[in-house]
Amino acid sequence: MEIKSYMTRIGQQARQAAGRMAKADTATKNRALTYIAGAIRRDAALLRAANQKDLDIARDNGLEPALLDRLSLSDKAIETMASGLEQIASLPDPIGEISGLKLRPSGIQVGQMRVPLGVIGIIYEARPNVTVDAAGLCIKSGNATILRGGSEALHCNQVLASLVREGLKNAGLPQQAVQVVETTDRAAVGELITMTEYVDVIVPRGGKGLIERLMRESKIPMIKHLDGICHTYIDDCADLEKAAEIAFNAKCQRYGTCNTMETLLVASAVAQDALALLARRYQDEKVELRCDEKAYEILHGYPYLARATDEDWTTEYLAPVLAIRTVNSLDEAIDHINRYSSKHTDAIITENYSHALRFLREVDSSSVMVNASTRFADGFEYGLGAEIGISNDKLHARGPVGLEGLTSLKYIVLGHGEIRK
Amino acid sequence: MEIKSYMTRIGQQARQAAGRMAKADTATKNRALTYIAGAIRRDAALLRAANQKDLDIARDNGLEPALLDRLSLSDKAIETMASGLEQIASLPDPIGEISGLKLRPSGIQVGQMRVPLGVIGIIYEARPNVTVDAAGLCIKSGNATILRGGSEALHCNQVLASLVREGLKNAGLPQQAVQVVETTDRAAVGELITMTEYVDVIVPRGGKGLIERLMRESKIPMIKHLDGICHTYIDDCADLEKAAEIAFNAKCQRYGTCNTMETLLVASAVAQDALALLARRYQDEKVELRCDEKAYEILHGYPYLARATDEDWTTEYLAPVLAIRTVNSLDEAIDHINRYSSKHTDAIITENYSHALRFLREVDSSSVMVNASTRFADGFEYGLGAEIGISNDKLHARGPVGLEGLTSLKYIVLGHGEIRK
Repeated sequence: MEIKSYMTRIGQQARQAAGRMAKADTATKNRALTYIAGAIRRDAALLRAANQKDLDIARDNGLEPALLDRLSLSDKAIETMASGLEQIASLPDPIGEISGLKLRPSGIQVGQMRVPLGVIGIIYEARPNVTVDAAGLCIKSGNATILRGGSEALHCNQVLASLVREGLKNAGLPQQAVQVVETTDRAAVGELITMTEYVDVIVPRGGKGLIERLMRESKIPMIKHLDGICHTYIDDCADLEKAAEIAFNAKCQRYGTCNTMETLLVASAVAQDALALLARRYQDEKVELRCDEKAYEILHGYPYLARATDEDWTTEYLAPVLAIRTVNSLDEAIDHINRYSSKHTDAIITENYSHALRFLREVDSSSVMVNASTRFADGFEYGLGAEIGISNDKLHARGPVGLEGLTSLKYIVLGHGEIRK
Repeated sequence: MEIKSYMTRIGQQARQAAGRMAKADTATKNRALTYIAGAIRRDAALLRAANQKDLDIARDNGLEPALLDRLSLSDKAIETMASGLEQIASLPDPIGEISGLKLRPSGIQVGQMRVPLGVIGIIYEARPNVTVDAAGLCIKSGNATILRGGSEALHCNQVLASLVREGLKNAGLPQQAVQVVETTDRAAVGELITMTEYVDVIVPRGGKGLIERLMRESKIPMIKHLDGICHTYIDDCADLEKAAEIAFNAKCQRYGTCNTMETLLVASAVAQDALALLARRYQDEKVELRCDEKAYEILHGYPYLARATDEDWTTEYLAPVLAIRTVNSLDEAIDHINRYSSKHTDAIITENYSHALRFLREVDSSSVMVNASTRFADGFEYGLGAEIGISNDKLHARGPVGLEGLTSLKYIVLGHGEIRK
């Protein structure tokens, strides 16, 4: 009950701050962002000390090395946070922009104005940099935000929160525009995702387990993706050198990211040559290849070879493992992707114009690519300037979500006394 | 259980048809729409006979006159349905359009392509014309749709459904792109709103009771509005003749629509004159005025006068009743609206430039107007060509929703072999 009233107060404060943030002008918001960037650099030592405290506790609690790694805040990571805020400050302000004004036969002019969503709840795991990125994006887009970071990063997040508050205050903005939930009680998350009156959208950042739980329990719309089962399809008209380069990059450039390729589809007609080229590269990285019958035969002798089962088509490995399937046509490739893909990012490698256009139109994923690595599916690479998350859903934002995904368009009508006849 | 398997089959068929609809070209979709328009005209007598059967049953069941009225299909209504389809055929096809392509430093070009949402479930009450309007919009936007109309209109809807199927078949499109649920069992609705695997979005059309029930039970995102508590604010800088004209139109042009004004706010400084002008007009229409203290005093002697209670600020009368409140400033007006409005449509009447801009920016509703009647909040009036509904929510579509609201934007990447460094 205490958690409930604590969260309700946070919600009410956020709702109130949201009203003031929606009115804030661009220069004021940028002043806050730039100030916070400076304060982060100024207090880098403080941040490292708080981070050390978090790391010590985490180690005592036996946190996995991978999580410890994501929790730790290097000098470089601190500088990246600060410069990230400056980059957000340099982006155009989306709020208040009027677009598409059209004169209607009745005499009214109808257009749309971009406005903030209101209050954004962000739920994330260990990484403390999310605190600053998310705060920055929400400030710039005129929203209030409630941040619920992983309990492992609590000390560091508290320092960051105080720097953000300092920046807001300094710019004359409400300090409660960015609130960090300062309890590690999991019930706080339960409250956050059901306070429909105070929170307009939830952005969860974390593993599949977290997202699945939130999907079941949230009463508030979410901007989210569950997993990234990304495909690369090597078409029978592909340039095979290009194909090998891209397929290697899509799998091996980083294993743990959601835009990493997990399944490779190869047109049967070129499977022999394409897989031979790829096997040499994958072998250096000890990538396990889980193959359908035909690919298995072709790759006979490859040291990390296995047979694929149906489960492999829906598995996000996040590891040096790749499922490989041969297909007899573009149709078969598109069908496989629309059936098994997580609708995140899928690519075709082809020199055939019609195949490229059909793939772009018919693959029902949030990012569809021709002759490029799936690893490009990212807010920075797409030129959004920053990214609050990636959405695999079709409503509202789809794909990498930047400032615009934290806004909505309302209709505005400019009249001169018109009445409806 | 039988309903469950019946609805599952419908869902699977819709999902399959959606894949084909997404690929359909503009000419084919338009051919279907034009054919259905012709078939409706051809079979007008059949439609009237089916409608007569529905009306007879409805009368025997003691349906209210207002609902009987909405159920009945005149010659004019039949022609409106047919010409509505031709109008949809004449609209530009939103599907497949590529926008915003930008070259990124990595060499890739990133843009967005407009694509269908997939399967749209539409749940509506008596009016049979929704069957045709919704089918037309979904066909044009490349979606499949499952229509669940009121049981009162079942016979008429069955005839309409067969004409739609005829048109789809004639154009070479899958007949199951538009399916009418042919059972009156209410459990069918329960299935429709929870088949997350087969349905991408639900559009409910109907009274508050229906929408509230669906909001509680639906597991699928909805494009909807609950009610329309619309405001007109007469500013202290208003042209009072203009104000009276607009406020009269906003209340009295039609009482039963969601964009009808339900609360009038008046700046205290002009309340005396503005209300005197308005009272004369409202009196002719016997509009009951429920007033705060100050307005009550001013309107002393008006024959249909009452005192407002707090409940009046949140009541959608849909009747010749109007709540009136005096406010001391623009801020007070905006605060009242952001607190009590249903975020549908709110208007300011003013000649003051800064007041107009502040109202446009700060009122958090799906349509915000200056010097125009709230009755203009409508897909046709806004130039969308047609309307599937109105959304008061902030995510995805907001305000009147036309073809574009039934689509989403996916990212496309055109590469030349780029890999992520």
